[in-house]
Amino acid sequence: MIIRLQPDADPAAVSGRLAALGLWVDRFEGEGRQPLFVVHPWSAEASREQIEALDGVAEVLARQHGRPRLDAAPPVIDVAGIPIGAGQRPVLMAGPCSVESEAQIDAIARQLARSGVQFLRGGAFKPRTSPYAFRGHGEPALGWLSDAARAHGLRVVSEALGEATVERVAAHVDLIQIGSRNMQNFPLLRAAGATGKPILLKRGMAATIDEWLLAAEHCLDGGASGVIFCERGIRSFDPNTRNVLDLGAVALISGVHRHPVVVDPSHAAGRRDLVLPLARAALAAGAGGLLVETHPDPGRALSDGPQAVDLAALAQLAAEIDAGAPAGGWR
Amino acid sequence: MIIRLQPDADPAAVSGRLAALGLWVDRFEGEGRQPLFVVHPWSAEASREQIEALDGVAEVLARQHGRPRLDAAPPVIDVAGIPIGAGQRPVLMAGPCSVESEAQIDAIARQLARSGVQFLRGGAFKPRTSPYAFRGHGEPALGWLSDAARAHGLRVVSEALGEATVERVAAHVDLIQIGSRNMQNFPLLRAAGATGKPILLKRGMAATIDEWLLAAEHCLDGGASGVIFCERGIRSFDPNTRNVLDLGAVALISGVHRHPVVVDPSHAAGRRDLVLPLARAALAAGAGGLLVETHPDPGRALSDGPQAVDLAALAQLAAEIDAGAPAGGWR
Amino acid sequence: MIIRLQPDADPAAVSGRLAALGLWVDRFEGEGRQPLFVVHPWSAEASREQIEALDGVAEVLARQHGRPRLDAAPPVIDVAGIPIGAGQRPVLMAGPCSVESEAQIDAIARQLARSGVQFLRGGAFKPRTSPYAFRGHGEPALGWLSDAARAHGLRVVSEALGEATVERVAAHVDLIQIGSRNMQNFPLLRAAGATGKPILLKRGMAATIDEWLLAAEHCLDGGASGVIFCERGIRSFDPNTRNVLDLGAVALISGVHRHPVVVDPSHAAGRRDLVLPLARAALAAGAGGLLVETHPDPGRALSDGPQAVDLAALAQLAAEIDAGAPAGGWR
Amino acid sequence: MIIRLQPDADPAAVSGRLAALGLWVDRFEGEGRQPLFVVHPWSAEASREQIEALDGVAEVLARQHGRPRLDAAPPVIDVAGIPIGAGQRPVLMAGPCSVESEAQIDAIARQLARSGVQFLRGGAFKPRTSPYAFRGHGEPALGWLSDAARAHGLRVVSEALGEATVERVAAHVDLIQIGSRNMQNFPLLRAAGATGKPILLKRGMAATIDEWLLAAEHCLDGGASGVIFCERGIRSFDPNTRNVLDLGAVALISGVHRHPVVVDPSHAAGRRDLVLPLARAALAAGAGGLLVETHPDPGRALSDGPQAVDLAALAQLAAEIDAGAPAGGWR
Repeated sequence: MIIRLQPDADPAAVSGRLAALGLWVDRFEGEGRQPLFVVHPWSAEASREQIEALDGVAEVLARQHGRPRLDAAPPVIDVAGIPIGAGQRPVLMAGPCSVESEAQIDAIARQLARSGVQFLRGGAFKPRTSPYAFRGHGEPALGWLSDAARAHGLRVVSEALGEATVERVAAHVDLIQIGSRNMQNFPLLRAAGATGKPILLKRGMAATIDEWLLAAEHCLDGGASGVIFCERGIRSFDPNTRNVLDLGAVALISGVHRHPVVVDPSHAAGRRDLVLPLARAALAAGAGGLLVETHPDPGRALSDGPQAVDLAALAQLAAEIDAGAPAGGWR
Repeated sequence: MIIRLQPDADPAAVSGRLAALGLWVDRFEGEGRQPLFVVHPWSAEASREQIEALDGVAEVLARQHGRPRLDAAPPVIDVAGIPIGAGQRPVLMAGPCSVESEAQIDAIARQLARSGVQFLRGGAFKPRTSPYAFRGHGEPALGWLSDAARAHGLRVVSEALGEATVERVAAHVDLIQIGSRNMQNFPLLRAAGATGKPILLKRGMAATIDEWLLAAEHCLDGGASGVIFCERGIRSFDPNTRNVLDLGAVALISGVHRHPVVVDPSHAAGRRDLVLPLARAALAAGAGGLLVETHPDPGRALSDGPQAVDLAALAQLAAEIDAGAPAGGWR
Repeated sequence: MIIRLQPDADPAAVSGRLAALGLWVDRFEGEGRQPLFVVHPWSAEASREQIEALDGVAEVLARQHGRPRLDAAPPVIDVAGIPIGAGQRPVLMAGPCSVESEAQIDAIARQLARSGVQFLRGGAFKPRTSPYAFRGHGEPALGWLSDAARAHGLRVVSEALGEATVERVAAHVDLIQIGSRNMQNFPLLRAAGATGKPILLKRGMAATIDEWLLAAEHCLDGGASGVIFCERGIRSFDPNTRNVLDLGAVALISGVHRHPVVVDPSHAAGRRDLVLPLARAALAAGAGGLLVETHPDPGRALSDGPQAVDLAALAQLAAEIDAGAPAGGWR
Repeated sequence: MIIRLQPDADPAAVSGRLAALGLWVDRFEGEGRQPLFVVHPWSAEASREQIEALDGVAEVLARQHGRPRLDAAPPVIDVAGIPIGAGQRPVLMAGPCSVESEAQIDAIARQLARSGVQFLRGGAFKPRTSPYAFRGHGEPALGWLSDAARAHGLRVVSEALGEATVERVAAHVDLIQIGSRNMQNFPLLRAAGATGKPILLKRGMAATIDEWLLAAEHCLDGGASGVIFCERGIRSFDPNTRNVLDLGAVALISGVHRHPVVVDPSHAAGRRDLVLPLARAALAAGAGGLLVETHPDPGRALSDGPQAVDLAALAQLAAEIDAGAPAGGWR
């Protein structure tokens, strides 16, 4: 935003009033008597009305974000009867990296349902850095996954990897996952949207928040019934964790922009011993749910075993969610 | 770590057992029959003994971290009677970016003491990106700060900016803060250590966790009675927050390495509306305390007003810490 | 690589010999008498044979990179009669961000051909961060582009944005461009490969070099006749340039791994005044060509006008390439 | 900059004229008829006068950068008789990471002088990540270094590590190096400035260009007779090079801001096999010199041997600089 002052206002005094609102400003001088103030992006949120009400402010000029559909989206998205977003009980989405067999996924689903999990996740089509790694069992795995979920009262989320298969994924799931590597695969975003299903949109490895919000706008413009953001860590320089979990982005999107966000602590950490602390931190920051890689026997997982937690960890998280509801309900 | 297998072991089976422990491994092949496995840094923590107990493992070779003093440091540091670290009630350190006057800091100290804060913070010597910005009131401000703290039963933390002034800072404070820009100012680390006081060591803007731990070793080797780590966000690419708060590093250092860590959500976010959510997230991730920029009237602050929270926010955090103690005590 | 020493070797002496080869090593100790050395990734390239020839070295164990097809690829790729890669005259690929009309692209092609450019580039299908921005004229633009190129003796490169349109793009171009946002869109990589055309593979905004090389392996495994890497800047923290051009990666891939690399200084800089200096730097670092956004009238460009250079700049680059050929030919 | 339009101007037409100048703009709307345009930082440089001369522009409002001393600094700095900066022959600064003995540095100086090098570099006080690594031979090494330089007609550059030793360093050198870890050690910057010597200011590992320029302002405000910037790579995510060399920053500071910049390809790459290609690229981007770690026997270096090049490489660079002078002289 740009702030134009009244002709007789004292710029230092106005700057103090803006700081009191949480706004950092840069001051631009021209030939006129009064400077213009440009609000820095890491300022606290304030509405045009709040700023124009300040003594000494003449006018606020704003920039179009170009996200009309996202701006109009409700803060809570219903996914097959489960509400996700501000003020709702956080949801748990769990399951293995890959769906490995019909028996495996059914056994996992049974245990997860007992642990208080609402969504079964599992990969049928897997993006793999190497062309020679296991790429998932494909369409049959989707059937096993949805059968297992239905048998145990769970909802289903799974990743759509390409335009050619997105409709088949949509036919089996309640929530279509778009992976980090595809956050700006625009034809896929539109094809996923065209199925009319809600979309779980993972953040790209180095995507800015604005790019992420605009990717959601692509989904909604394509026809998606809703978008749930999923923060999974951004790329950084320290090798001791796989990625850096950006909970500032979670607090911003969930608490300020009021869109539903879930957090994937498994890919953020890459290491099992940090999954629970980061899961708790995510909920404290305002996440509306968690997406957790879970495997009953991580040593036998076909992919990502080292970062999978066991089912007891999920039960622990579910218990903490039960116990942790604040007096006035979830924020 | 490097893992050497027994001559008759099945590498795939051993790899599965390692994954079950949370270890990712890369496989190196030579002319011998058996490969060597190198453990990836983002693996879960496992001891040499745990790994050598696995079926098929012959030997584990490890790398010296070169941190004997830090390895020997206790998990809880006592700072003027206040224990900080694992299992202790989280501490609150709060106060203005700059000590602005004797009256200001006394008034703030009175209110913070009532709000449940234990440490008074305030800048006397301020690092400033521009040479023409306010650099703090210097030594007089240290006196005002320590008088105010003593009058209201608080401990004192303040930043030492250079070798020439560190002893004067040490004379007034209970905990010497080393700022992010000085995390690898080795003469200062040693000079601060030589005072024998405990040190609050902020992480550099792009410091790896290993560099940060070794900077603490410099402090301890110089004579510091203890080091408390302070995560304050690392530099990244998104302009909507000032930095990215790396709670994975916090969970790792506090929960796995067992050293005390406090978190500064103010500099991490840069924006007031994210300070509380990130403060809560930090505690959930295992932080032993919080360092929060607070100002009774942020619009009149001489520096960093837009990111300062008011005293009510501190009281709120203190109340949540009181309410939030888990049945079995703090982790 | 892991280096095993001979039983009687002096580890310090071997470490010195490794340093003399340009290798940094970490030392891992077990119960045996001799440590193992692990070579750090930012070491100079050295072959297993070179290292095993050192006094005191018993054996080198290496890791499979998993890129058999890329390893077997020749260092020079022929694209419609133009050789690209080590030792060849650097190629110039130029043209507007978007193909705007039949007349526009024909006029540009005529002028570029006179300026010494070999490849005409232009966007028909454009990835756009916002769903409401101009997305290119689509298939008709491909026809205009290839007609213009053919009329003036140029080759054609244009971006394929999705699986559904890649064959249509392939029908019109000599070289299929895969954009940064799609570097790990694996179905697209394979579909582009299946056309049998060579691929210009732009690096993802935060892709590691290993991920980039493996993405090329996906293309080759899918059937591509060759892959030319295109460095276009990686995401970083400074707002004064759009991205940070990573010429270390260029020198590494072209000079050490011996694969052809071209550089896009336009997207790296984002600003016209840095395009020429970065173009020169790219050639000096070993790039086999340049991809430059060019527009005869940047003020009227439908997209990316501010970073486009004019045709005189291209003529200047072509002249410098002519003048700059080292006595012994291009490196 | 903020651009105010004339009341009857067509915003789209003005936006096109700005693009033609290389400016990206964001458009801010208020209640008035005309929007304001804010120029994006990665735009090409344009003066207020150039913009105000455009049809439709009423006024340009600018932001104070707060660098009066740097703005007034000349584009070429004379260091003990050697001019460094735009239009001058690039200088070579070379020598070992550490000064190891009187004999060693004298032998190196003799050979470097013959190779066409102008400055001898060598560490006497070394910053080391670990407190237990070799920290340099201290003050005696400074004497050996300056004696060797004087004996062979070279100038001297060496690092000042702390306030307590900066004067002793200044007494022996022609150019005081401030290391990356100290780029924002403000007391050191001022103490180095107070010696009146010129300063070689290395960029911090994650310092923005604006922070770097302001650090130079601290030096000049402290009394430095000039500042030469040294780009040595910024921290990023790829392990195959030690850092990422940011030649966009070099082109910007040398070519647009017109301050002298030298480049350290050794620390940027970390690997010997990329030092020459990056050195060539730096000169092509506009660097006024190179700072290269050189050792006659890298296998015996006390520090950083793997990234040191041999003396033949320096002779090669000197020959290329001789051969490479453009017809009209250096840019």
